[in-house]
Amino acid sequence: MEKRINAAEARQPSHLLSAPTGSESPQHDADQGRDGKAVGFVLVHAGAGYHSESKAKEYKHVCKRACQRAVEKLKAGAMAVEAVTAALVELEDSPFTNAGMGSNLNLSGEIECDASIMDGKSLHFGAVGALSGIKNPVLVANRLLQEAQKGKLSAGRIPPCFLVGKGAYHWAVHHGIPPCPSEKMATKFSMSAYKRNKRKMELAEKVETEYKQTKKRRQSSENQENDSGSLDTVGAIVVDGEGNVAAAVSSGGLAMKHPGRVGQAAHYGCGCWAENAWNLNPYSTAVSTSGCGEHLVRTVLARECSVAVQSEDAHQALLETMQNKFISSPFLASEDCVLGGVIVLRCCRCVGSQPHQDIQALLVEFLWSHTTESMCVGYMSAQDGKAKTHISRLPPGAVAGQSLAIEGGVCRLGSPVD
Amino acid sequence: MEKRINAAEARQPSHLLSAPTGSESPQHDADQGRDGKAVGFVLVHAGAGYHSESKAKEYKHVCKRACQRAVEKLKAGAMAVEAVTAALVELEDSPFTNAGMGSNLNLSGEIECDASIMDGKSLHFGAVGALSGIKNPVLVANRLLQEAQKGKLSAGRIPPCFLVGKGAYHWAVHHGIPPCPSEKMATKFSMSAYKRNKRKMELAEKVETEYKQTKKRRQSSENQENDSGSLDTVGAIVVDGEGNVAAAVSSGGLAMKHPGRVGQAAHYGCGCWAENAWNLNPYSTAVSTSGCGEHLVRTVLARECSVAVQSEDAHQALLETMQNKFISSPFLASEDCVLGGVIVLRCCRCVGSQPHQDIQALLVEFLWSHTTESMCVGYMSAQDGKAKTHISRLPPGAVAGQSLAIEGGVCRLGSPVD
Repeated sequence: MEKRINAAEARQPSHLLSAPTGSESPQHDADQGRDGKAVGFVLVHAGAGYHSESKAKEYKHVCKRACQRAVEKLKAGAMAVEAVTAALVELEDSPFTNAGMGSNLNLSGEIECDASIMDGKSLHFGAVGALSGIKNPVLVANRLLQEAQKGKLSAGRIPPCFLVGKGAYHWAVHHGIPPCPSEKMATKFSMSAYKRNKRKMELAEKVETEYKQTKKRRQSSENQENDSGSLDTVGAIVVDGEGNVAAAVSSGGLAMKHPGRVGQAAHYGCGCWAENAWNLNPYSTAVSTSGCGEHLVRTVLARECSVAVQSEDAHQALLETMQNKFISSPFLASEDCVLGGVIVLRCCRCVGSQPHQDIQALLVEFLWSHTTESMCVGYMSAQDGKAKTHISRLPPGAVAGQSLAIEGGVCRLGSPVD
Repeated sequence: MEKRINAAEARQPSHLLSAPTGSESPQHDADQGRDGKAVGFVLVHAGAGYHSESKAKEYKHVCKRACQRAVEKLKAGAMAVEAVTAALVELEDSPFTNAGMGSNLNLSGEIECDASIMDGKSLHFGAVGALSGIKNPVLVANRLLQEAQKGKLSAGRIPPCFLVGKGAYHWAVHHGIPPCPSEKMATKFSMSAYKRNKRKMELAEKVETEYKQTKKRRQSSENQENDSGSLDTVGAIVVDGEGNVAAAVSSGGLAMKHPGRVGQAAHYGCGCWAENAWNLNPYSTAVSTSGCGEHLVRTVLARECSVAVQSEDAHQALLETMQNKFISSPFLASEDCVLGGVIVLRCCRCVGSQPHQDIQALLVEFLWSHTTESMCVGYMSAQDGKAKTHISRLPPGAVAGQSLAIEGGVCRLGSPVD
């Protein structure tokens, strides 16, 4: 894989992402104040959906902590895949996010989680779907990835990369991941959202039964949104000091989903993507998505965004992808409202423009974009004292599901001197 | 969607696929003897794996029957998606294939099936994973697709496109699909294969325990193959008289897989793909895959093949895709043996070269390619009296997992006159 990184060295982006115009300018240069060690960068999200001002503080807090966990790992010498897992565990453990603890309840009042992880160096992938009884689904996904990297099982059996339901649960417990009773994973907030949604559903179905007008029912319900908590999937993307990338995503899924429903967080190419640079791809890329699972699956959005940002202008490429391959995708032509968000990073080694800059510097461009009302993100380089967080919102007057917001920044990481 | 077909009308492929050199020449012209109604074409597979001469007859029979079921539907005016489902039901019902009845048993001695279907007209998709207790998993996948096309559920809930495990089972039964006890789905053949595999595994693990050399175990087992029955996933692709395409795939998964393991047959973009022509894509395309699920997932092979055959020379494009994006894929760099097969069709409306030919003729090019020892295929146009079947084999001396076979044909369908 070393040659993949080398292949990117010669390339120097001629057109960098312009600084965002938002109030919290994320343009920063990690070279300032660096201690000579560049050990990476992390970008996390706590979901694309709707974040009220009252909820914003909690979401920012959890994003900040998740960034710190990842950076602690990076500073301790961990690779990207380990750091991204640490960020996800923190995001899953928050009762405010729709992942792990406090996940949305399904139609039967149970928690079933999806999660996946991808390592840009080995290009291995691990995923779990409809998993109950495990506090941190990302740990199971990561363990699947690690086990698959060891090669075949006894009698030449190919190790699985995707496990679901009871089978996933038993595999996890057998591999030493502790079980957690489902009732401990539900929170006061998720329980009350479940009851509220259940009442809403029963009312809607009563109306339907009274009128016996299925067609009308289908149409009239089209503009109703699920409870606002339903889209707060979480995810993270990381680049480590060696330039390896990793991505992960975790979700409790849509509120009141049918038991057994698996969303984008467990789907290869849809929930996350990570791919180190190699001879055909000058950039290492990592992506994590959030939003309506079915929309993200049918557009294979994580992989599409990764492919897109191999072109010169990452900002423009992501903008066009979100517009043409998501909002206006022929695969979602029947949807009046296309809901999703992505975080993206790409990086390459480059020659510094200043004499004091290390010739091995890693240039990291990071972006987020969403068609939902808002998206909560956090980011941090290993040289930063603390993470920056941001609630990105659609421009005034923009219609959720039909318009998009896009922002980002650039970070230059000097490479380790020892 | 009508405009998608129209967009393809103007295009006339200048370079058609050359006739295959095999003993059973699949080049044929459905215009000969046509009754004025062109109602479509079907191509099926009964798996990429190893088909002994003794098994060949049974596999050819089931492929023939599957083609006939699809053509019966097409002649009765069914659309591609209905015809492809009928073909799959026939393939699943055969005790010789690794799908539905007679599927491979997992590590616990249970049958868990994966299946998916895609409609090229609506671009909707339905899939089930690790589903037990349903004789025809493709019927559940198809029903998910049909239900999703109706729009949102009560209270604005988004209908699922992918269900797994118990949840999928309950959804199926609730939607009128009859349950079938698992013990009825196992056959004498699948039971004896299970016992044989179990012994083999226990022996391998005993050796491992005795030597306590995990690394050696991993390496020494790499060249062992699973029981030959393990890769016989089935699938079908169809184009109907209106030029709509559909694709489906169904699998019992790898023999001795971990319970809950989901393979490519349930993965979006990996097991099957169907996409009608539209303004950016001159051809309608349909693909179904077979082989080692993890290899097909990590290369998103169905979607890759579909994208590839939009270029002028379908044969060359598929050859390059199988070589560069499958056998030599960086995503499978750690695998010494890359096992899979695909069936592909693409079609477009074209102007006939002879005065008597209908200006609305549909030109169908169909191909199969595999890296496994063999692949069993069958195909039939609605004008044919019976299906043609073929066991495709690697050229003499070629190494399975490192070389490939590719063959195919062309079929011209006149369009309906009424």
